[in-house]
Parts: sequence; structure tokens; C-alpha cells
Amino acid sequence: MPKSLLTIADYRKAARKILPRMAWDYFRSGADAQTLLKRNRAGWDAMELRPRVLVDVSNIDTSTTVLGLNLPFPALIAPMAYQKLAHKDGEIALARAAAASDVPYIVSTMATTGLEEIAKVPGPKWFQLYCHKDRAITQDLVQRAEAAGYTALVVTVDAPVLGRRIADERNSFELPKGMTRANLDRYSLSSVEGKTSRKAVLSPRPSTLKAMEGSHLSELFRTRQDASLNWRDIAWLRSLTDLPILLKGVLRADDATRASDAGCAGVIVSNHGGRQCDAALSTARALPEIAAAVGGKLAVLVDGAIEWGTDILRALALGADAVLIGRPMLWGLAVGGEQGVRDVLDLYRSDFVRAMQLCGCANVGTCTELAGG
Amino acid sequence: MPKSLLTIADYRKAARKILPRMAWDYFRSGADAQTLLKRNRAGWDAMELRPRVLVDVSNIDTSTTVLGLNLPFPALIAPMAYQKLAHKDGEIALARAAAASDVPYIVSTMATTGLEEIAKVPGPKWFQLYCHKDRAITQDLVQRAEAAGYTALVVTVDAPVLGRRIADERNSFELPKGMTRANLDRYSLSSVEGKTSRKAVLSPRPSTLKAMEGSHLSELFRTRQDASLNWRDIAWLRSLTDLPILLKGVLRADDATRASDAGCAGVIVSNHGGRQCDAALSTARALPEIAAAVGGKLAVLVDGAIEWGTDILRALALGADAVLIGRPMLWGLAVGGEQGVRDVLDLYRSDFVRAMQLCGCANVGTCTELAGG
Amino acid sequence: MPKSLLTIADYRKAARKILPRMAWDYFRSGADAQTLLKRNRAGWDAMELRPRVLVDVSNIDTSTTVLGLNLPFPALIAPMAYQKLAHKDGEIALARAAAASDVPYIVSTMATTGLEEIAKVPGPKWFQLYCHKDRAITQDLVQRAEAAGYTALVVTVDAPVLGRRIADERNSFELPKGMTRANLDRYSLSSVEGKTSRKAVLSPRPSTLKAMEGSHLSELFRTRQDASLNWRDIAWLRSLTDLPILLKGVLRADDATRASDAGCAGVIVSNHGGRQCDAALSTARALPEIAAAVGGKLAVLVDGAIEWGTDILRALALGADAVLIGRPMLWGLAVGGEQGVRDVLDLYRSDFVRAMQLCGCANVGTCTELAGG
Amino acid sequence: MPKSLLTIADYRKAARKILPRMAWDYFRSGADAQTLLKRNRAGWDAMELRPRVLVDVSNIDTSTTVLGLNLPFPALIAPMAYQKLAHKDGEIALARAAAASDVPYIVSTMATTGLEEIAKVPGPKWFQLYCHKDRAITQDLVQRAEAAGYTALVVTVDAPVLGRRIADERNSFELPKGMTRANLDRYSLSSVEGKTSRKAVLSPRPSTLKAMEGSHLSELFRTRQDASLNWRDIAWLRSLTDLPILLKGVLRADDATRASDAGCAGVIVSNHGGRQCDAALSTARALPEIAAAVGGKLAVLVDGAIEWGTDILRALALGADAVLIGRPMLWGLAVGGEQGVRDVLDLYRSDFVRAMQLCGCANVGTCTELAGG
Repeated sequence: MPKSLLTIADYRKAARKILPRMAWDYFRSGADAQTLLKRNRAGWDAMELRPRVLVDVSNIDTSTTVLGLNLPFPALIAPMAYQKLAHKDGEIALARAAAASDVPYIVSTMATTGLEEIAKVPGPKWFQLYCHKDRAITQDLVQRAEAAGYTALVVTVDAPVLGRRIADERNSFELPKGMTRANLDRYSLSSVEGKTSRKAVLSPRPSTLKAMEGSHLSELFRTRQDASLNWRDIAWLRSLTDLPILLKGVLRADDATRASDAGCAGVIVSNHGGRQCDAALSTARALPEIAAAVGGKLAVLVDGAIEWGTDILRALALGADAVLIGRPMLWGLAVGGEQGVRDVLDLYRSDFVRAMQLCGCANVGTCTELAGG
Repeated sequence: MPKSLLTIADYRKAARKILPRMAWDYFRSGADAQTLLKRNRAGWDAMELRPRVLVDVSNIDTSTTVLGLNLPFPALIAPMAYQKLAHKDGEIALARAAAASDVPYIVSTMATTGLEEIAKVPGPKWFQLYCHKDRAITQDLVQRAEAAGYTALVVTVDAPVLGRRIADERNSFELPKGMTRANLDRYSLSSVEGKTSRKAVLSPRPSTLKAMEGSHLSELFRTRQDASLNWRDIAWLRSLTDLPILLKGVLRADDATRASDAGCAGVIVSNHGGRQCDAALSTARALPEIAAAVGGKLAVLVDGAIEWGTDILRALALGADAVLIGRPMLWGLAVGGEQGVRDVLDLYRSDFVRAMQLCGCANVGTCTELAGG
Repeated sequence: MPKSLLTIADYRKAARKILPRMAWDYFRSGADAQTLLKRNRAGWDAMELRPRVLVDVSNIDTSTTVLGLNLPFPALIAPMAYQKLAHKDGEIALARAAAASDVPYIVSTMATTGLEEIAKVPGPKWFQLYCHKDRAITQDLVQRAEAAGYTALVVTVDAPVLGRRIADERNSFELPKGMTRANLDRYSLSSVEGKTSRKAVLSPRPSTLKAMEGSHLSELFRTRQDASLNWRDIAWLRSLTDLPILLKGVLRADDATRASDAGCAGVIVSNHGGRQCDAALSTARALPEIAAAVGGKLAVLVDGAIEWGTDILRALALGADAVLIGRPMLWGLAVGGEQGVRDVLDLYRSDFVRAMQLCGCANVGTCTELAGG
Repeated sequence: MPKSLLTIADYRKAARKILPRMAWDYFRSGADAQTLLKRNRAGWDAMELRPRVLVDVSNIDTSTTVLGLNLPFPALIAPMAYQKLAHKDGEIALARAAAASDVPYIVSTMATTGLEEIAKVPGPKWFQLYCHKDRAITQDLVQRAEAAGYTALVVTVDAPVLGRRIADERNSFELPKGMTRANLDRYSLSSVEGKTSRKAVLSPRPSTLKAMEGSHLSELFRTRQDASLNWRDIAWLRSLTDLPILLKGVLRADDATRASDAGCAGVIVSNHGGRQCDAALSTARALPEIAAAVGGKLAVLVDGAIEWGTDILRALALGADAVLIGRPMLWGLAVGGEQGVRDVLDLYRSDFVRAMQLCGCANVGTCTELAGG
């Protein structure tokens, strides 16, 4: 790692210089007034740790287990769309770096590389699912993911519609020529029609739904994603597959409890990196009550502005089993392709090791003692 | 809507460039040190929403009912003086845009267009009443409003005297030549003398009342508006008309309860957009206890720095039935006349739709579940 | 009042331009890191008022009574040293402006005009007393004040030693040639020796007392003011005079209770305008518990960053009987001599009138209802 | 003291100009994002004192006793590495200034002057111990310190590994040629081998421990310091010496209680000046609960951003027996060698005297009454 790239902030600044404006804005933006970007960060900063002293930390164990998966340290790579926007090697680079680090990689439905191609890269992988209006497409995606060896489904539940990112609208964001939503392009409306009786009917916009149409992504969402997604669909998804299902975007204890009742394997406490509802509460504030409600029964993961090893520790102290790391993966990818991602993962891991040692935690099970006050 | 006008902030900046300094300052200023402008905004920002997931929001119902009026979404246009200062079409443009959107428009006593002329534009309208020292004028205004088809009276109760806006004093604010307080100009002191035994006596200023006389508006208030307005006057107003009466400017639960006892139909939780008492509490902080005291019995509306769809949601979550939108209507008016106002109303509506969807609210009755914590 | 001088901030800025650096710094500075200057202001800003509506405020009574003194509005002029530094007319100008406004003027021991000369200006006056090591001087000052017609003694108790004002040290602050501490210059050490058996012995500095000696004021304090001042001295002062005694600089409820037990007539909740202990609590925060402890029994006054009429209202709502206005008097004095002070007093008064009206207070007795929440 | 050097901030600014970048960065930096540097300071600022009035403070007693040591005022000089980086006279200058002021000086294991040479300077001294992997070195250090006349051992317990200081990594921090860790240089691995059966085996880095290797200090720590340090080692240290043992770096009440159970004489509430775990809680926040748990039984000291006499008072009010002053000693050293340190100590002492007087504390035992609220 060069001397100029010592922190996540360094990578972010370097990526900003490298990336085209449209890509930088797409990755970096929060929704609306972007207050949640700051509140997510402030949520962690406000949580002070209480280090324990005189614990032997000469040989600590940073590993943990989430849904049967062994993690070298309590972090996974968050699903993120359009990774080729960050670097030509896109998802493949990320998958290889993840594999080299044994860090699970959650592949996005909106990947710019096909899930089957990504799956050829070894290493643990989960598949993030956007539920399509056309249930045949949804079903096909699930079955493809299972067939390709993905070991869990992460169903995004905080995006019945797309949050509004003003910069994308100003930029008229769209994918550059030659870049495609590789998982979806096979689904022309006709190509799936034969497989299901549920037609891909684009319902007319209700008159009260004159949504902003500034970006292509928004348009895509409106026409394809399913705003009717509800608990019955979760039951239907469970009927399709034996893969464990995690719900991503849960911010309420009652929803987490319902996820448990619905047979889900986990919840990801998330506000979509501040990209959906800008008024939503920060993940650091949502986490404790959700962990109190379902911790132990479900896997409880959390994301949003995790930038330091101490942030992972804070998340564990507040009841999470592990964190998801999102944008910083893209900064590493933009800066150095696969090696950049490896470097960023190393940075997190070594930073987490140091954080555990400095807080007197010999294994992740003891991290919960650091909260309080 | 052009790409440069995507948010209320965009409209505000554009309006600032378009408007003469005197008009901009008049519309934008808060009272005294203008701390409440910021605190009103901070009040909403501090209120974090708890979105619910996996609710079918493909066809949501944003409509609600306030005092028998069907609203397409829970917002009305706040009464604001001197709308011709923002655009030559003034109140008529606003009324037409409101009608096109089915959004109720609350016409100000201080309109620069006569209430009868405004009433010719179709669409739901309420009349905002400043109570004059000369009760004959007051009575005449009420009867004219009723005759013209206004369906409710909004009595402003937070302005026994005018708040001090320093910029107006520096600008020696006055209406430009040719612009008049159209509702009031017919009332020369003599013209109404015959109708009532209560003389329009201008009481001498008490020695302790050497108010700043920087602006003409201040002078007008001091000579014409009635600082003696009290609960007996509300009873008198009720005796004049069958129109439902809402009190605008209520910030205390006990006053709201008294409004209920006095037979009012609603209260508008308001600090006059920060233009009266700069030390008053923010509306987001006043709202919950007022809703707890009279919600369900009275219509509870709220205004003050509502800039995003999520702010409307926050207001509902804190117990309001609907919000009033004020200054942003003027920014739209300044930027594009009637079309500008329509665009801003569309912006709010679509933003509110998205906010409801992102928070898992299929109808406005469920929005109260988003508060807490 | 010219258009450029509409607020206290305007006067402050104008005074800064007019005053020599040494005088500006002396008046404006707080102690040490000057955090308390900001916290005093923040203390009021954090206190939100709950205006009451529909109260007849057409003829309000802003007057109140403090220790038998009728005040046109609940404010007195705080004692401040060296007023000729602000304007050549110094204390006389302030006294005349105070008299014209019927506002009591508290004359400082450190006046640059003799207390007898100031007393010739009509109007209510109190005398602020710094207790000297030489009790004969102290006794003489008390007797002179009583003889000259001052109606109360304000004993400063927060200055056993002088707070440290860094700017004064940098400036090597001293009074300009020809300006004297007029009340004290007659007391050469020999001149008072005959009157008392208590010798004016300057005790040697303890070795732990190597105080900064950057300013002449600091030196003066160290040699003349009495760091041994204690409750027995208050008893002694009471034995010297029938004048009511107020203690200025009280920040604790137990000290206020003790003042009551000691026969004092009042306390002034003050941290010396942030000029003594920079870590002390703000007056807005100290006031409520002191008012709860002795309010009703003792006169409870408060000072510190009172800049608006609403601040006076906040002080009353938190339990004060009246406020002291300090530095803004000097800004008025610097800007316009006697007329400048009158203008500033008018500004406060009219601002307070408006504040009461906007909060629905017809008399000062009802202001306590505005707190809460 | 020149007029330009009146506050600790003045010394800091002057030192920054004098010191080479590498030295300034080394001394000044906090860990990671350096939030704790600010939070340590904010912790004191948030604690408002409640001064007591009318206490005779003409002859106050600022002295106190800590572990049998008489302190002229409740402060000791914190252990700090590499003091020759600040000034060529390094530790000797600091020791002489400390002796002249009777302030105890805690000598660092990482001194650039040998502990025996420092011990020749008269005056009370404690020795700060980093526990080495090679216990023979550790034992030797303890015995040398005892032999040289140090009267207590301060065992650093918050540094099982080194915190990450980004600036040091960017600077590739290392000691300048000719400057050595004088206490350690005698310990070549072979030189101590004969004395103990515990070999100085450098354990291979675990694969999860790819720590940043940006600075030589970091490397030194990793290879020599003992990350296995635990409570058994404290028992072993006690068996080696009769010197009282204080643990430096305690932030939890349970750890403080355990220190008491382990026979320690005191704890130093510290987060290593923000240089180890950036997410740790501030010392002002950790102090009260630790004082509540072990105050009276153990000596409770505290450090971190103590810059004013009022900060010492705040620490006492929150339950500390005394404070440690760190970086400001180095600013004095950089600016003026021994005399610079004397001046800074005088500044603290006189500032503390004034603070006590302004708060009505005649002796340090009464300072606890200033908290509350």
C-alpha cells in the first residue's frame, strides 16, 4: 500500500480524482438532502467504546461464523450495483479480492457481470435479489443463483421504489455504452413470457405518482422493480429455494421479529447507505433494539459508513454479528482494481485486529462488553 | 421541470436571483436574530423516521380529509401576504395552480388581489383573517369571505403586533407603487363608520410602546391590527358565521384545548414561519403535545420549513393531519408564475409519494407508526 | 436611531470600529479561553419560549418592582468599570440616559467619575462595592454611597481575585493618562490610616501565588481587593448601613440560601459576564435552581449576554425578577454618548414590549408561564 | 514569560514553528481519525463548575498528597517518549524544571536519556514501564528504576500494541541519528539471555496480524512490547518490587476495581492522549465512575487535554486526586528548554491558584463540591 493510501478517506479522495463525475456521483450520493450520509457516520462516532485492559491479546481470534460461513473477521462485502463503473474489471476484480481474503462477497442483481461468470471465481458468495414485477424473472434469478452456488439470498426490502439522488438526476445518469445489467439483459419481456402465467404488465402510473424521471436507473426501477413486495412474497421466495434468506434494509425491531416469524435467516440493518429515505434513522441507532429483539435467533448484520476497525467493534458491541462494507470497496476498486480491493480489505482487517487488541478483546464474543455508558 | 430546478432549495436560489432585494428579504426573513428559521428546520431534521418494510406500496393512497375537504395529499397552501411581490400574476397564479392540483389555497387578508376576484378561480379555498381594530371591517371581511365561497376561516392569533424583521426595516419595506392590499383598500376610516357604533379610534401609543417604525407593514399593523384580540373575539367571530374556524399560531397544548372549548374546528401549529417571536419553540417540538391534547377532536395542521416529502411524513408521524406549505410556493411563483407553482406542488406530491413508499405507508393513516425512539 | 443601528449587534460592531483596541478588548473580553462568553449566549438560545395566544395585549404593563424600586421594564444597568474608556462623558452620560429612561443605574466602584458627582444626576441608583483589603476604605465607600443617595449596595462576590483576560495582558492594559479610578484616588494608604486600627498591610504574595501580571488592573486587584472576603464581612457591611445589600456573582442555590440567611436583600445570578472563571456555568443554567431556592424571599436578578427583549422574557420565565444589561450600554455610549445609551435602552424596552405582546403576557407576572418543555 | 507566551495554546503554536515536522507530528497526533483528541478536550469543556462565593481565599493551600508524595499542586508530569525530539536537553531539562517546581516527573521507558542519568537530577520521580516480551528486560528495568531511586512504577496498560498514528506513517517516523532509546539499548537479545529461561523469541506474526508498518515505532512495539500483558503479569511485577504500582490507561470501573484487588496503588484514567484507540471514551467521561468505584482506596489520576487551571479543578471535582500534564510540557521544552518547562509549570500553577480562588476553594479537599448539575 503506497504511503498516500493509508486510510479509507485516502482511497475515497483518490477514487474521486480517478472516477468520471457521473460514476463518482452515482456511488457517493445519498438521497434528497443527503443528511443521512452524515448521520450514519455520526451514529458511530457518538458511540464511545470502553476498552478493557490487561487481557492477553498476543494471539487473538478475529474469526466468526455467520449462517455457517466462516469469516476471517466480521465483515462481508455489501452488494453494490454497476461495479464496472468503478473499474473495467468490475465484479470479477471484487470477487477475486474477496476470495483472496476469504471475505464473503454479496453479488448485486444489478451487477455489470453475470452472476454465473462471477460464481466461477472461488470463494463464499451470496446473491442480492431485487424482486421484479415479473415473478418469472425473480424466480429465474433465484434459481440461477442457487444453481451457480451462491449460499444465501439477500433480499433488498428498502427499495420498493428508488430513492431520489439529485446528482444522478442532474447528470442524467445512465450506464455507459457497452456496460449492461448483465443479470437482467436476457429477460426481454417476451423471453420470459412463456415461463409463467403472470404477465409482465407495466401498470400505468397512477396520477399521484408523477415521480421524477431524471435518471435511467429511476426509470428502470419504476418499470421493473416491484413496489408491491410484501411478506407473502418472502414466503413465496422461501418456497422457491432452500437457501437461507436475509432481509436487507430492516430498521425496526417489529420488522425484524416478523422476519424471524417468516423463517428468514437474518436481517441486515441498513438504510441503503443513505440512498433511499433520507429521513430514516441511522443504522447505529436502529441496531441495538433490533439486536435485542432477534439477536441470537437471526443473523444480525449492519452497514452504513463503516470506515474503521473500531466501527466494526462498535457494531459488534451494539449487537451485530458482522458488518457489510460497501463504498470503500469501490474506492479500492477504482484506485487499483483487484489489488486495490485487496489492499482495502487488508486495511480493514489489520485495523480491526488492532481495535480488538486495543480494546482487550481476544475474540469477537467479548466485544459486547465494550458498550455501555 | 428543468434539470436546474429539482429541489425546493433550487427554487429558492432561483427566486433569490429573480426577486428584487426588498421582496426577497420580505419573504425570506425571520424575526430578530432569525434563529427560529434554523430551529424550525432543525426540528424536522432531528426527527428520524422508522421505515416499515415489505408493505405493498404499488398503489398507495396519499389522500386525506381535513374538515370535510378532500386533499390529494396532506398539504395546503399557507396564507401569505403580497403575492404580487413575487410575480405579477400573484394570488391568481397561485389559485390557478392550486386548483389544477386540487390543493386547498388559504388566501391572506393581506392579498394584493381582492378575495372575490381570487374566489372566481375554482378550487377549495379558505380565508385567513387578521382581526382589525375596527370590528366592522373584521365583520365585513368575514361576510365577504363567506359570500365568496371560502369554506373556512383561518384566524391568525400569533400576530397581536408585528414581529420585527430587521431586513425590512433596513429596506424601509413598502409595497411598490400600484400594488395594494386589495382586501382592505375599500375601508377608508369614514367608509365603515356608518356600519358600526365601534369607532375606528386609533389609540395613542403608550409611552412604553415606542415600537420600531422601520417598515410600513409595521406601521400598518400598529394602526389597524388589533392587539386586544382574545377569546371573546373568537366567540364573536363564531357568532358571525357558520364557517369552521381554525386558529393559526398555536404553540401550546393548553391553548389548543381552549380552542377546542371555544368551538374552533382546528388549530395550525405555527410560529409564523419564524417571523414573529424568534425565541418561540419550533413547530416540530410543539406539535406532539398539541396533537396529544386535541388530535382527533380538532384538525391539527402544522407549518414551518416543510421542504421535503419526508417532512410531511414527519409531521403526520408526530400527529398532524396535514401541513401548510408557505415560502416554497412563492419561490415557484417567482420562478415561473402559475406553472412554477404547479411544478413545486408536483415536486412536493411526488416527493411525498416516494416518502410514503419508502416508509411502507400505503395510506396516510399508517404514518403515525413511523415515529418513536 | 439610524437605519444602520437596529440591533445590539449593530451597536457592538459600530463600537468596535470607534473604540481603541485596548478599550474594546477590555470591555469585550472574557476570561481565559473565553468559552463562557459563548455559553452564556447559548444558554438563552437553548431556552425556547411557549407563547400564549389570544391574550389582550393592547395595553400591557411592562413595569415591575425590585426592592421597592419601580422599574419601567425589568432591567437595570449593570455596574461596569471605566466608562470614560467608552466615551469622554463616561458615567455621567450613562447616568443621564438612565434617568431619562427611569432605568436604575448601578455605579461601579471602579468608575472613572466620582460617585458623588454621578449622584447629582437624578434617577434611581445603586452602588456596586468592591471590598478593599483596607476596611477603612470599604467603610468610607459605603458611607459615601449612602450619603450620596444610592439606595442599595451591590457587593461583588465573584472577584476575590481578578479573572484572567488574555487580551488585556497582551495589551498591557492600563487607564489612559488623565483617567482615574475617581472613587479610590483619595485613598492614599496614609490618608486612611488614621481612621481605623486595621492597617492597610499588603500581605506578601504566597509563593504559590505567582499570578500573571500582565495588566495594571490585575496588579491593582492583587494589592487592594480583598481575597479574604467572606460571610462575616457581609455581616459587617450590614452593620455599617441600612441600605439593602445584593450579592453579585452568585451561581449556586446554597450560596443564595446563605445570602438570605445573612440578611441580604437580593442576589444577582452572574458570572461577571464570563470575565472571571471561564469554566463556570452559564447564568441561564444557574438561574432556575437559585430562583427555586430563594425566589419570592430575595430579589433575584441575572445578567450575561442579554441582547434581545426575548432574553429578558426568558430570564423572567426562568424565575428572575429583572435582568442587568451590561456591555450593550457601553456600545451605545461609545457610538453616541448619552443619546446612544438612550437609544439602546429604547431598543431594549421596545423589544421587550413586543416580546411580551408576542408571547401573550399582559404583565410581567404572567411571564413565568412561558417556560416548560 | 514573554507577552507572546501567555497560554498553553501560545506555547503549542510556538512549538509547532520550532519543531521539525516529524517531531511535531509525532507529539501532536492522535490515533486514526483523531476524534478523541477533540473529545478529550470537549469532555472538560462540557463540565461546568459551580463556584462558591464568600470563602476566604487570601491564603489558599494548593498542595495535596498522592501515594505519600507531597505535591505543590495536584499535577504530575506525564510520561512521554523521546523528549530529545523536542529539545536537545530532553529529559534532563524536564527533570530539572520539575525539580525546581517540586512537581513529580514520570520518566518514560522510551526516554532518550538513561533512567539512571535522569535520576541524578533531584526531585520526586516515578518510572513508567512498558512490559517487554522478554521478561528479563522487564525485570531489569524495574530493578534499575528501584535502584535509581524512583518511588513508584507506572505500568502502561493501554498499549498491548501501538495505536495507529497516520502522520507518523506518512512521515516514516524514526528517531534521528544519534538519538537512542537509552533505557533499552543495552538489551541486545543476547545480553539478557543468560539471566532468564524465558527466551526473547519473536513469535511469528499471525496471518491475521498484518499490521501497518509505516513507522519504526510501530515495528519496535510489535517486536518487543508484550501484547500478552495481563493481570498475572501485574502480580509478577508486584513480586519483583516493593514500589507502589499504578496502572496507566484504565477507562472502566471494573478494571479499576480489579487493579485494587490486584494490590495496585493507583490508576491513571487515560486514553493515552487519544493516541491508542480513537473510539475510546474521553477521560472526563470515564473518570467519575472510576472515582466512584475506587476513589479513597486507590490514587486516581487522570490525563488528556488538561490545558487550564480550571481543567485541574474539573478533574478534582469529578473525583481525581491529581492530573498528569503531558504534551504542554513538550511545548515548553521545545520553546525554551528547562526554562520553558518551568514557565509552563508556573503557568499551570498560577492558573490553578486563580481557579481555586475564583471557585471559593481554600484547599483541594473542597474542590469536589464544584460538580453537580
